[in-house]
Amino acid sequence: MKTMPDTLLIFGGVAGGASAAARARRHSETARIIVLERGPDVSFANCGLPYHIGGEIADRADLALQTPDSLRALLNLDVRTLTEAVAIDRAEKAVRVRSLTDGSESVISYDKLILAPGASPLRPPLPGIDSPLVHTLRNLQDMDRIKAAAADADSVAIIGAGFIGLEMAEQLHHIGKQVSVIELQPQVLPQLDAEMARPLENVLRDKGIELILGDGIDGFETTPDGISARLKSGRSLATGLVILSIGVRPESGLARDAGLELGPRGHIVVNQHQLTSDPDIYAVGDVCETEEPILGKRAAIPLGGPANRQGRTAADHIFLGDKALPYPGSIGTAIVRVFDHAAGIAGYSETRLKMEGVPYQTVTVNGASHASYFPGAETITLKLLWSPADGRVLGAQAGGKDGVDKRLDVIATALRGRLTIDDLAHLELAYAPPFGNAKDVINIAGFAAGNIRDGLLVPVPDLKSAGPRIVDVRPAAAAAKRPVPGAKNIPLAELRGRLGELDRSQPVFTVCQMGKTSYFAARILANHGFDARSILGGAHHQL
Amino acid sequence: MKTMPDTLLIFGGVAGGASAAARARRHSETARIIVLERGPDVSFANCGLPYHIGGEIADRADLALQTPDSLRALLNLDVRTLTEAVAIDRAEKAVRVRSLTDGSESVISYDKLILAPGASPLRPPLPGIDSPLVHTLRNLQDMDRIKAAAADADSVAIIGAGFIGLEMAEQLHHIGKQVSVIELQPQVLPQLDAEMARPLENVLRDKGIELILGDGIDGFETTPDGISARLKSGRSLATGLVILSIGVRPESGLARDAGLELGPRGHIVVNQHQLTSDPDIYAVGDVCETEEPILGKRAAIPLGGPANRQGRTAADHIFLGDKALPYPGSIGTAIVRVFDHAAGIAGYSETRLKMEGVPYQTVTVNGASHASYFPGAETITLKLLWSPADGRVLGAQAGGKDGVDKRLDVIATALRGRLTIDDLAHLELAYAPPFGNAKDVINIAGFAAGNIRDGLLVPVPDLKSAGPRIVDVRPAAAAAKRPVPGAKNIPLAELRGRLGELDRSQPVFTVCQMGKTSYFAARILANHGFDARSILGGAHHQL
Repeated sequence: MKTMPDTLLIFGGVAGGASAAARARRHSETARIIVLERGPDVSFANCGLPYHIGGEIADRADLALQTPDSLRALLNLDVRTLTEAVAIDRAEKAVRVRSLTDGSESVISYDKLILAPGASPLRPPLPGIDSPLVHTLRNLQDMDRIKAAAADADSVAIIGAGFIGLEMAEQLHHIGKQVSVIELQPQVLPQLDAEMARPLENVLRDKGIELILGDGIDGFETTPDGISARLKSGRSLATGLVILSIGVRPESGLARDAGLELGPRGHIVVNQHQLTSDPDIYAVGDVCETEEPILGKRAAIPLGGPANRQGRTAADHIFLGDKALPYPGSIGTAIVRVFDHAAGIAGYSETRLKMEGVPYQTVTVNGASHASYFPGAETITLKLLWSPADGRVLGAQAGGKDGVDKRLDVIATALRGRLTIDDLAHLELAYAPPFGNAKDVINIAGFAAGNIRDGLLVPVPDLKSAGPRIVDVRPAAAAAKRPVPGAKNIPLAELRGRLGELDRSQPVFTVCQMGKTSYFAARILANHGFDARSILGGAHHQL
Repeated sequence: MKTMPDTLLIFGGVAGGASAAARARRHSETARIIVLERGPDVSFANCGLPYHIGGEIADRADLALQTPDSLRALLNLDVRTLTEAVAIDRAEKAVRVRSLTDGSESVISYDKLILAPGASPLRPPLPGIDSPLVHTLRNLQDMDRIKAAAADADSVAIIGAGFIGLEMAEQLHHIGKQVSVIELQPQVLPQLDAEMARPLENVLRDKGIELILGDGIDGFETTPDGISARLKSGRSLATGLVILSIGVRPESGLARDAGLELGPRGHIVVNQHQLTSDPDIYAVGDVCETEEPILGKRAAIPLGGPANRQGRTAADHIFLGDKALPYPGSIGTAIVRVFDHAAGIAGYSETRLKMEGVPYQTVTVNGASHASYFPGAETITLKLLWSPADGRVLGAQAGGKDGVDKRLDVIATALRGRLTIDDLAHLELAYAPPFGNAKDVINIAGFAAGNIRDGLLVPVPDLKSAGPRIVDVRPAAAAAKRPVPGAKNIPLAELRGRLGELDRSQPVFTVCQMGKTSYFAARILANHGFDARSILGGAHHQL
């Protein structure tokens, strides 16, 4: 048993800091637990902020999960809001703090210190960026400002099409704004591979949201009616309000000044107990980087779930010492709802695996959210990535109108368990017609992955990667309605009788609507001696 | 590579048989694949039958996934419906079959045989059971008969409150019938532990469905208006229609006659490749028993998912031999929707672990289906069971109005990966306010389980197991509204100031609404030297 600390000092009272404080109090009634928070609020629902702007969370009070008073009453915490730390004196184990209300300074000694200051939205030093019409969203005050500004604006430009940017686009459209989204990458949601982000782009455009992809911001100019954003392409975009959501930067300045080890992008380096390079200082949440458990690389993942559990991990180590369980790393599961669609990821994308130079194989399949014969089934597209060496799952992305969160959770659990594509093939998921499938899209992905490994399915990633001999095996009516350019239509049911129409000396590429019938056709052709390859995922999103 | 069979003969053309045939055809264009089916239909959606009776699946044609003609066209199968096998001659590798249309018999030789005859509904030899008003539900014809009979009946008695019985109760209520459900066990859904079935009982009763629990059937008598069911209790129940759903029996008579090894309840014993005791005969689906992967016991699990994947496994072994991957066993994941509630299980229940004499620990927690501050969140109750030796998850049950299927799928995946309670604590599930929680109910269950193991939470399973000193730590208004009998109300926020009111010499039992605040209170008390125990799951479903 470790010596119980007399004073536990925590910087930051939102996700990671609040969780650490609560968990610490479960371990000890005698420890003095002080929480410093620079803002006026603690423990608010930061992931809910966009939804109050859009009115979907009607009551602002619902976002205040706790108040300083409630934390005092329930957890006997000494919460000091509007207070910032100025410097950490590691030798003296003391922190100089400053009140933001009266500017007075004081010193607090600590036995253990937990740094949970979070990360701040990036605001690059562009001309005009200090305009009052350029907003970022981090806390309730930012939210209030954006909500007020949006009331006066007809149009909004959102810079950055990541998770928060898309949530803001959806919510601002809900309240009737003309929304433009500007993204430096040639796709929305750059965390996903481009083709998995495409359906979201279609949804956004269908709603009348303007997408300006592959373009960035050079600066802003105030105009009589609002503000004009100058884009790198030379274009000017006049709008009433700008929201910057291009990423975050860890608030590690104090840690840097105190000489704590930082990672290459400025995150505080911690071990598996969230301990920094100082044996009495922990860091949790968006400010730190840990190891991710899939490839064992360093990773900083600014998400609420990891922050909460890292806070708990730090508190456990302070009070339990070596008996405490380590934080197992973050895999980066994330999801976004964009109108009636959802898309998300767990683990690595293909883009990131390429960047890391890690060998992988991939397949994309479509399946129904529940039994297709039961009303309300929607198509889910699932892209799976795995290691060719051992079949271990490395990541997956999913998109669709229903059940996307469920499939991502299954993949997240599979990643934690280091499951393989064969495990996915045999997952026994809950099946009743309203809820699932006898062969779920997860199973189908496992089947297809195994077929690729075993040579039963020779995949082609998309139509444009196919060679000249494309056979469209959809029924004639479907093929006529949305033809695949240059393809010859031989419906699956006729294929065995029309093999003579095909040239055995060259590869044959099969395509269908969803990527399943084309596999069936390719098996028929391969078993008849053809070099047959199936176009993954079907033509439905490529035409 | 194994020698390819010339003729693959399959008994049964629904889930397991149809999957085996389809997979076989992917391996070979030259094999002759013959499918015998006693009924007129192949590959129909048997799990959808109740929903056509209730009209939720409006079009009967939606249940016919394939027809003999479509299987012929797509898979070049020789499908023979209305044909039954009469005897298997293993020495000659030949089967005598009989046409049910003209009674003619013939002999079919096979190289490999797959038995997928399924299981038939139990019809115990009770007086009056042959009445035309006593129905079972297995195929489309049964469905048609029940649908027609229900049109003439005002009331229906359903014997057996398992998954199918509850689906039928819901659907017959949908079409305006007065429904009674009779179940021998003192609870509905005996696959679940009693307290996890209780919310479904409340839902059924709230809809006006009569539940007769802990009572069985002694026989039936035809009456002028319909039929009367005599119950073991002596009661008579007059009704217009009876549906028997008390379980199924494997259709293993032919296998028994042919001398194949059967298990204690008449299932065909197979190895991990679905191979029977005959090296050329496989069995898949409801007729067989395999090993379950949690405790390594023999198990027969009559569900659609396993049947499909076992069919695939058998076909792979026939064509790939030792290169084929084994079937990893069935864990028995199941779910049922009952009006706006869902409940289900993955792995072992507490009742079954007790029967098996396997040591376990358990916790029940409540959590929100998604962020509680976002509209539409519903409470999910999750009961988790794990091995005290290593923390490995042994099973879980979940119930609620939303997101139950997702949590069961996460548990099913965790069971496949042999994950522990600590793994559950740190699962990184997809979180955005419409979809999940920064700390999901799965994480909370993992936290609580770890707290029990580590002695931070001393659990009491329910109110009636508590001793005399109960402290209700809910706010005064909540405690006054639905008081816990005999409890003293000390709201959590006042607890630290009122410790003097409690007797340190005796155990103190804390209770709250959902089982979370009572844990917080018990920690305060324990850290102040009390023997404090928290009542799991809260009072909300016990008052």
